[in-house]
Amino acid sequence: MSGPQDRLIEEVTARFGAKAALTDVAAVEPWLSDWRGKYHGASAAVLSPSSTEEVAEMVRLAGALGVALVPQGGNTGMVGGATPPDDGSALILSLRRMNRIRSLDADAGIAVAEAGVILANLHAAAEEQGRRFPLTLGSRGSCTIGGLVATNAGGTQVLRFGTMRALVLGVEAVLPDGGIHDGLSGLKKDNRGYNFDQLLAGSEGTLGIVTAAALRLVPAVKSRAVAWLGLASPADALSVLRELERGTTHVEGFEIVPADSLRLVLRHIPGTRPPLRGDHDWHVLVELTDDGSLKDGPEALLGQLLAPLLQRQLVADAAIAASEAQAEAMWRIRDSISEAERSEGPTLAHDISVAVDAMPDFMVAAAKAVERAFPGTAASGFGHLGDGNVHFHVRPAAANVEQAFDDRSPAITRLVHDLVTAAGGSISAEHGIGQMKREELARLAPGRVAHLRAIKQALDPKSIMNPGKLV
Amino acid sequence: MSGPQDRLIEEVTARFGAKAALTDVAAVEPWLSDWRGKYHGASAAVLSPSSTEEVAEMVRLAGALGVALVPQGGNTGMVGGATPPDDGSALILSLRRMNRIRSLDADAGIAVAEAGVILANLHAAAEEQGRRFPLTLGSRGSCTIGGLVATNAGGTQVLRFGTMRALVLGVEAVLPDGGIHDGLSGLKKDNRGYNFDQLLAGSEGTLGIVTAAALRLVPAVKSRAVAWLGLASPADALSVLRELERGTTHVEGFEIVPADSLRLVLRHIPGTRPPLRGDHDWHVLVELTDDGSLKDGPEALLGQLLAPLLQRQLVADAAIAASEAQAEAMWRIRDSISEAERSEGPTLAHDISVAVDAMPDFMVAAAKAVERAFPGTAASGFGHLGDGNVHFHVRPAAANVEQAFDDRSPAITRLVHDLVTAAGGSISAEHGIGQMKREELARLAPGRVAHLRAIKQALDPKSIMNPGKLV
Repeated sequence: MSGPQDRLIEEVTARFGAKAALTDVAAVEPWLSDWRGKYHGASAAVLSPSSTEEVAEMVRLAGALGVALVPQGGNTGMVGGATPPDDGSALILSLRRMNRIRSLDADAGIAVAEAGVILANLHAAAEEQGRRFPLTLGSRGSCTIGGLVATNAGGTQVLRFGTMRALVLGVEAVLPDGGIHDGLSGLKKDNRGYNFDQLLAGSEGTLGIVTAAALRLVPAVKSRAVAWLGLASPADALSVLRELERGTTHVEGFEIVPADSLRLVLRHIPGTRPPLRGDHDWHVLVELTDDGSLKDGPEALLGQLLAPLLQRQLVADAAIAASEAQAEAMWRIRDSISEAERSEGPTLAHDISVAVDAMPDFMVAAAKAVERAFPGTAASGFGHLGDGNVHFHVRPAAANVEQAFDDRSPAITRLVHDLVTAAGGSISAEHGIGQMKREELARLAPGRVAHLRAIKQALDPKSIMNPGKLV
Repeated sequence: MSGPQDRLIEEVTARFGAKAALTDVAAVEPWLSDWRGKYHGASAAVLSPSSTEEVAEMVRLAGALGVALVPQGGNTGMVGGATPPDDGSALILSLRRMNRIRSLDADAGIAVAEAGVILANLHAAAEEQGRRFPLTLGSRGSCTIGGLVATNAGGTQVLRFGTMRALVLGVEAVLPDGGIHDGLSGLKKDNRGYNFDQLLAGSEGTLGIVTAAALRLVPAVKSRAVAWLGLASPADALSVLRELERGTTHVEGFEIVPADSLRLVLRHIPGTRPPLRGDHDWHVLVELTDDGSLKDGPEALLGQLLAPLLQRQLVADAAIAASEAQAEAMWRIRDSISEAERSEGPTLAHDISVAVDAMPDFMVAAAKAVERAFPGTAASGFGHLGDGNVHFHVRPAAANVEQAFDDRSPAITRLVHDLVTAAGGSISAEHGIGQMKREELARLAPGRVAHLRAIKQALDPKSIMNPGKLV
């Protein structure tokens, strides 16, 4: 052993034991690629600290030796943000051993969870105390709190409770100089200068390693009502959302689904059935939740709110789930769209946002622009209309153009990003930049990237924190 | 004219007219001191841009000439953060001419207001559209949106809606290099790196000049219920808050008032009357608001929630305001405490926070510790118990010790800050650091200040943004 990486592994092993630095190839290998298999890197070890102090010590050692660290939680990211560089210059630092829920105060509505706590476990712990941690997403069984904070994760509940940033009350993190930022004091009000907690949230491991977070809990859901709506356009869908929001603050889910996506789900996902009888160009899944404060329950309220919209034909048809099983079936359609598309053939996904009010026109116009510029493609958006965030997918219109489609993918993505940028939007609504969108961000927002780099350079002058990501 | 300050004034006048650089002594003088008359500075002019582009141009000129700028809104700060240095090296840059509400979308619940918009004017504009901007404070008639954002202002509605940071959806600001950060796109989800909007909120003008903000609006209040409670201790008061929060999400105000503060208000503020008959060591003002979603209105709900607490004698006595006039009278007592204290004699105020659950014990123990260390003083906290933030005031216990009190003030403040720091709290909960607490912050949190300075240096290498404040 001779390189600085090897010396770091030796030092860590000597101080904290063999458990703290996994070097066995079989143990390391699963963490060298992202879960979708798009990005691959090299690392001689997975450092596995068991406490914040151990993380701090490892960061100090890494800084002294000039070895970069790649923080990793559940490795469920979408942009290669947790995959190490392929030259072996960095070591992975996994937070998975730090998996304790340090405290959960139901009265105060605050949980303090270590970075390695799996989201589903936090859900369960909150539920046991009659509370809820309201952020959730598909990878809840393996994604971790540290990664969710570091990437400012989103999901389907953002409409009512915001992204991770809105739920983070404080962050504990090890900064690049090995110092510990302790934002877990539980202070609701603290005006001692720049907001480090929110600076670290969404920093993708480039400014420090999140070791724990104080998170906001909300009252548990006592019941919910889910409906499936058929309607004419995204513009009508947004009008429906505004009408619902005028009537209640309990709208928690509002997901738009184009006819084409529904068709693919019904074709490829076993056991799915159309929620409505007729054909509609666009669909919406809406969910109202109740923590016990609604007069007559969420189902009655949803029915009352939808009635005038049906009468005005703003909503062409609607089905309110009559049972939890029906509600689950409706959500399953929404949650299966990506899988159904993959079964159909290649899909080019774009996680984009524009202002909420601008999204209906944008998604229609952008789809047309892409299909016109790239004949033989089919483009459409689905998802979080109420957040101004859709997953804008482009696919071959027919199976026989698949090869040509792959060749054109980079150009298609550039067009989508150009359209989003021209509309004042974001090329990353919820997945982050990672290594996937780094060049695109620099191309489209050089001024912003200059400011990001100034902050990065100020806090991490040796560039030991997740190199090659974001900035 | 010869100095760089004069050259900057000449350039600004030449480009943007005489209105853009007030040099008349009578026009400049009112802005050289803070409103409490504690801090005094010098400035040859008040630069008064009328647009974001003008601000950007002035910042670029100031950077080129090496002249520092002190951004100013309503000049209502509590820590000297808007007062220029006394050597005349900096110029005040007032945002008051930028006083347009650019848009107010009641449906989307978003207002975009320029920095110079006075808070009360935003309140009125939102009300006209059936909405509410929920942050409010005593200086609402003169404080401005830019200052509220830059200082992350608090107030009495934080319990339910958070501080300014929680209400800021995006910030437009001119950065020290003259570049414009445009965070007004209205994106609900945007994961393109570090959160500049939240970095600028609370940065006290040291990282850039806030020129506009996109702000969250909430449904208008249709009715409210206000009650005055008598109880035995801050610990009981917090238990009451938790019980109320178990029953409703509509608790908007929860202010604790010690017997001594009530006594001073009744003595010095004309027309005030005790809300309860008997004597109680501690009092609480509680407010529930209703946007129309409460089954039987807020008054009935408050009565229902208080009944078991009175029965358990957690609350010794309670009076629910029977009219809006009675509600106003209760709030007037709370809002007059500082004025009443000033009428009584000198007061040493500390704007502090600790974790909410720790505050009841802290405020009792800290008062005892101060009174023990400084015989002849009376210490107590009042205010936002539910936010873990009280105004911790120390006064002479009797009039004849006033002189000795003044001499001991710095030592008293140091003790209070030491106690807060030992409890993991903040020496500035809502007023900021400014010039008043800069040395104390450096003394008590050198590690934090080192990180703040690294960011400051990265974004403002020439140090032209509000020098001598915060960092």
